[in-house]
Amino acid sequence: MTSSFIRSRTQIGIVGAGPAGLMLSHLLARAGIDSVVIDLRSRREIEQTHRAGILEQDSVDLLVGTGVSARVHRDGQRHDGIELAFGGGSHRIDFQHLVGASTQLYPQTDVFVDLADARERDGGDVRFGVTDVSVDDIVSDSPVLRFTDADGVGHEVRADFLVGADGSRSLCRREVPEAARTQYFRAYPFAWFGILTEAPPSAPELIYNHSPRGFALISRRTETLQRMYFQCDPAEDAAAWSDDRIWDELQSRVGANGHRLEEGPITSRTVLPFRSFVQEPMHHGRLVLAGDAAHTVPPTGAKGLNLALADVHVLAQELERAVARGDTTPLTSYSERALRRVWKAQHFSYWMTTMLHTLPEATPFDVRRQEGELAAVTGSTAGSTYLAEAYTGWPQGR
Amino acid sequence: MTSSFIRSRTQIGIVGAGPAGLMLSHLLARAGIDSVVIDLRSRREIEQTHRAGILEQDSVDLLVGTGVSARVHRDGQRHDGIELAFGGGSHRIDFQHLVGASTQLYPQTDVFVDLADARERDGGDVRFGVTDVSVDDIVSDSPVLRFTDADGVGHEVRADFLVGADGSRSLCRREVPEAARTQYFRAYPFAWFGILTEAPPSAPELIYNHSPRGFALISRRTETLQRMYFQCDPAEDAAAWSDDRIWDELQSRVGANGHRLEEGPITSRTVLPFRSFVQEPMHHGRLVLAGDAAHTVPPTGAKGLNLALADVHVLAQELERAVARGDTTPLTSYSERALRRVWKAQHFSYWMTTMLHTLPEATPFDVRRQEGELAAVTGSTAGSTYLAEAYTGWPQGR
Repeated sequence: MTSSFIRSRTQIGIVGAGPAGLMLSHLLARAGIDSVVIDLRSRREIEQTHRAGILEQDSVDLLVGTGVSARVHRDGQRHDGIELAFGGGSHRIDFQHLVGASTQLYPQTDVFVDLADARERDGGDVRFGVTDVSVDDIVSDSPVLRFTDADGVGHEVRADFLVGADGSRSLCRREVPEAARTQYFRAYPFAWFGILTEAPPSAPELIYNHSPRGFALISRRTETLQRMYFQCDPAEDAAAWSDDRIWDELQSRVGANGHRLEEGPITSRTVLPFRSFVQEPMHHGRLVLAGDAAHTVPPTGAKGLNLALADVHVLAQELERAVARGDTTPLTSYSERALRRVWKAQHFSYWMTTMLHTLPEATPFDVRRQEGELAAVTGSTAGSTYLAEAYTGWPQGR
Repeated sequence: MTSSFIRSRTQIGIVGAGPAGLMLSHLLARAGIDSVVIDLRSRREIEQTHRAGILEQDSVDLLVGTGVSARVHRDGQRHDGIELAFGGGSHRIDFQHLVGASTQLYPQTDVFVDLADARERDGGDVRFGVTDVSVDDIVSDSPVLRFTDADGVGHEVRADFLVGADGSRSLCRREVPEAARTQYFRAYPFAWFGILTEAPPSAPELIYNHSPRGFALISRRTETLQRMYFQCDPAEDAAAWSDDRIWDELQSRVGANGHRLEEGPITSRTVLPFRSFVQEPMHHGRLVLAGDAAHTVPPTGAKGLNLALADVHVLAQELERAVARGDTTPLTSYSERALRRVWKAQHFSYWMTTMLHTLPEATPFDVRRQEGELAAVTGSTAGSTYLAEAYTGWPQGR
């Protein structure tokens, strides 16, 4: 129970202070719209959860262009291509040459820090470490957000609209009655075994490696710390793997295509699950969903964070119209616009996943056909361009 | 038993007088190389088996450019694009605009007639209706082809090289010992229900129709006879379907995307199986495989006949070298060159199949993702180009 209780009003109440929630709040502020952002986690807790990030060109432009982050260019690593390794060789997809765009390796954790700093700098109302969160009256004209702040003070915030940007375990999503939404789900029969290693980079760009033993992704973090992944059983026990066994597995997979990894002590090992999820539509009454709260993609192709930023880019435009008009028509428009991109991204993530991973039930035909596809894509300028434009990101906000 | 017995010699002995065998014999003759072609079927039997055909640009060029067929342009229908119908609408893939190429609707039966006529005109040695076919000594320098001709005369033809162009139930393929080859196979959990109907065309170009009820393909034959297909269970009994039931099913599938079919009496109904098959390598000793004898593709994307013509285009070049050198090195080169195209075509056929068909175990997620893919492909010039260049055909003979 709380010792005091405060009633207040804002235009947009946002649940979740991850990149989606904070970026939305930032974009709304630039349009002169007030918002309150709350999160169950403390700022320190979010900052200490390492999350990788490959930013699309438009995600970088959004961060830089709206004054969130000047350091994304300085501290991030610009990647003008990726390697697709298969069939005993390796083939570069040259983004700059094919589509005149790049991606930026910049951890999601840093995107969060930049956004939290920008909100603080601009006087945004962001409350970390809240408890007892609930949303109510979402089909009324005056939905309400209730929570207890980090100091134990109870709050009831009335808003014009509420946004659930509260991640894949979203509380807000559950407020949409079953009859009013459709959930789409797909499980995958594998996971990623992810490691961090204290070693120099093994390659200048990311290597997406197909091998009959399974997929591996060689990523980077800094000059002295590297991120690598390999396809594993979802029930794999990360703790049961010695450094030697991990290196043997990784070297064997990339070695099949002529690569060799720089080894070092392994400082972190985790098994990351794979799943695809979409909830449609992305609004109900005056509650809107954005980012992981509405959709999850498998990590291949790195669309999760970018999709969240693309969502709120569109959502900020539509909320501006909704506030001005005082009705929910723009929320329907948001849902339709966002879902078009979501399903393209779901397909892209599925495509990259199934093209590069080895399914447990794969026959020798399937493996040769995958190599046939990889040869077709890399051997065709159009095929490589189709991949490059999806990887570097379709234009946001359209 | 035969009443007489003739021993003879040729440079290339070819089993199978389908398009692959006859085109190879024709190309070899142009290079001054003798061949004998035999087939178990009579010419009339082959002519009376209706087989559809969509010719790639290079297949047309090969037929016209080497003097086989002047009428393919006159009697065939040039198609500058296809319709992809999905998600309630229809989108044209404009081949001419995207890749400056076209396809030609020209039945395989007519390709056969043109080739058989050309071989007859040029004095080619083609024996239809033979029996007791066997090949022997394939790992020697002088392989042999034995058969009894239509007049009951026994033949033993020694050759420099033998070619098995004897279709998907190839006898020659079985001559390769198990230890010397790998077979790749994939079954599909559906088939095509194919009909011929006496009706005017429903659309100027082919419609590839995705719907939650399953795939349908609206093709053409003449101004008064049309070919249509719809995805069905492989165990479907074609005879159990009334005309009305077939039209209901077809109209419902294409109607979902705004099309309406011209109906007429259904004069033929067949269930066509779906499978993918490859045997590697495509030669053993002095026996070479070409066309369906070495590989089968599902019909989506119409690659079967084109792949056979592309095979023999390369094979004629390599056999010319093999005859000149007197060794089998060029056969290895043929196998490698042909298989690169085969696996790309296997992937393309698989891609078109899985993008457009509804798998029996498909979840709602899978259907929405397919629509996401179709939206991504048709919404991207690069994606449409990638599809168009595969559909109109990668360059032959490279």
